[in-house]
Amino acid sequence: MSIYALILAGGAGTRFWPASRARLPKQLLGILSERPLLAETIDRVRPVVGADERIFISSAASVAAATSVALPTFPEERILIEPVGRNTAPCIGWGAATIAREDPEAIVIVLPSDHHVTNLEAFTAALEAAIASAKDGHITTLGITPTRPETGYGYIEIGEKLGSGPSHRVARFVEKPDAKRAEAFVAGGRHLWNGGMFIFRAADMSAAIRAHLPALADGLAAFDAAAKEGREKDAVAARFCELPSISIDVGVMEKVEGLRVIPVDMGWSDVGSWEAAWELAPRDEAENAVRANAILIDARGNYVLDLRTRAVGERERVISLVGVSEMVVVATDDALLVVPRARAQEVKKVVDALRATGKTELL
Amino acid sequence: MSIYALILAGGAGTRFWPASRARLPKQLLGILSERPLLAETIDRVRPVVGADERIFISSAASVAAATSVALPTFPEERILIEPVGRNTAPCIGWGAATIAREDPEAIVIVLPSDHHVTNLEAFTAALEAAIASAKDGHITTLGITPTRPETGYGYIEIGEKLGSGPSHRVARFVEKPDAKRAEAFVAGGRHLWNGGMFIFRAADMSAAIRAHLPALADGLAAFDAAAKEGREKDAVAARFCELPSISIDVGVMEKVEGLRVIPVDMGWSDVGSWEAAWELAPRDEAENAVRANAILIDARGNYVLDLRTRAVGERERVISLVGVSEMVVVATDDALLVVPRARAQEVKKVVDALRATGKTELL
Repeated sequence: MSIYALILAGGAGTRFWPASRARLPKQLLGILSERPLLAETIDRVRPVVGADERIFISSAASVAAATSVALPTFPEERILIEPVGRNTAPCIGWGAATIAREDPEAIVIVLPSDHHVTNLEAFTAALEAAIASAKDGHITTLGITPTRPETGYGYIEIGEKLGSGPSHRVARFVEKPDAKRAEAFVAGGRHLWNGGMFIFRAADMSAAIRAHLPALADGLAAFDAAAKEGREKDAVAARFCELPSISIDVGVMEKVEGLRVIPVDMGWSDVGSWEAAWELAPRDEAENAVRANAILIDARGNYVLDLRTRAVGERERVISLVGVSEMVVVATDDALLVVPRARAQEVKKVVDALRATGKTELL
Repeated sequence: MSIYALILAGGAGTRFWPASRARLPKQLLGILSERPLLAETIDRVRPVVGADERIFISSAASVAAATSVALPTFPEERILIEPVGRNTAPCIGWGAATIAREDPEAIVIVLPSDHHVTNLEAFTAALEAAIASAKDGHITTLGITPTRPETGYGYIEIGEKLGSGPSHRVARFVEKPDAKRAEAFVAGGRHLWNGGMFIFRAADMSAAIRAHLPALADGLAAFDAAAKEGREKDAVAARFCELPSISIDVGVMEKVEGLRVIPVDMGWSDVGSWEAAWELAPRDEAENAVRANAILIDARGNYVLDLRTRAVGERERVISLVGVSEMVVVATDDALLVVPRARAQEVKKVVDALRATGKTELL
């Protein structure tokens, strides 16, 4: 029985424009360091799975090329490329089925590719507890101790504590709450953030999908059959779009019995905006987070990032801020963004404007 | 007797960094429009002198190449290139001497190359009055009606009004005042801004230089003698650095008798900072002055300028401001500046920092 990781890296987003693009999403960017978030996720889980051979990446056609560039040494055959996005249930189902072909008894760790974890020890310990729980036949999730009444995340209500370890029953999955409920969740101490991290035996996930998403189970069975004949790619290309588009939370987790949750406080962030990136980045004495050839004069609390590609020998561009505070300044080859940190979420409006004016080459 | 213009375009400055550089000063930039300020100055004076053949440009070795690029059709032989800067007295003296060789009776209009005039009719009328005054043998200057108690300019105190025209005697030149005196100057109505515009017969300037700056007069005489033998360039290269470094105001204007001043209210600006450029530039309904492929969302009163050079077919960079107000954002190929409009003068500090850190290629 081996431990595998399945890292979900097919998503797109707009909150890191102009660094992120439709074909170069957040998980492929070096937002917190020079290394892409996806590479950092691999680094984080590698000690638990023990070997790179047991890591699969779930990608998508639109971002596959950039993924290969971001992970130049990662074997192409372990990047599962969805021809179209069908939400997380088909994605996880296909990954679990692929792993089950290699080892039917495998334990699978599903992780998002674009989050950040500060406390690696806590992360690893929680995973080990979750693996033990999964070995006992329970689909298990990590529940993140909330640090604020966030309304942007789903929550997991914990149930009965089990044994001497950290494991609890899951009472229920809860959709994104309003502010009042979120406050109550944090105060009550029985709700954890759902960070999309799941640990299970491949066979258990297959059974759960068969029970709750039979159409998906049929599709995955067809991929298995095609794989035996060496033509899985064709089958995926032809039939992936027919799979039901549904999240693993709604399609499986909210329905399956015997779920377990491991609470974990590990300095987690979903790196949801330039503001979050500033919070996580190393900062100078004036609270500026800078990855650029910058000249800052009377400038405090800024996030400055230069992602220009340079020709060999070309000198670095200088970015200069004078008397500017708490601002995000991000420059790429073809775009420049200036937005106050506190309004970083509004970068989405720029993307909307680009789309509305047909400047699709900048999306 | 012909009318000539001598446009002083050898200066350098730091207030328009990163657009302006040591070898690409403000007068060569399209700050208010696509046309360089120098070209706009030529346009402004051309109707008065009547023909391009009677326009000389005083340039400097450090900016000569960029000047030729900025004025691709302007004849090289009418660009006087100072090998080193020696302030305005040698510059104007050499220009006047050069013009005097073509027409000893010539009237010379000396103009800075990097100012802006909104009311062209008022400018032209003042020049015509100044030319009439110069024909009578008076070195004449234009005095700009002050619109605020500016402490950054020199002033001209007007004396007795002469005849029915606008001409006055000059009572005296006044150095940059403190705030209190500047207030009194504006309230008193007898002080005008010294905009560095002088109109005189070439012969009268030669005589004034002979009387008050004999060392300069000797140097200019040597250039004249060399010119007769077709080797003026050699003489200038060898001896220009020996000329006394002194301004025309201090060296001549403050000493010569019989000076005249023509008051003029012509919407004048010395375009002294990015803030001034914003004031003069066309603006949209939200008071944004934009010359860039910009996306502005909830952004007011900004100055946005993109000076990137593009390869053929290369698409334009987009500059996006979200929730940003009264900011200057200027981008070039190798530098980016973000500074509040109200602090635009502090761009000088960036230039100082570049110099201090040895990044001279960006100066």
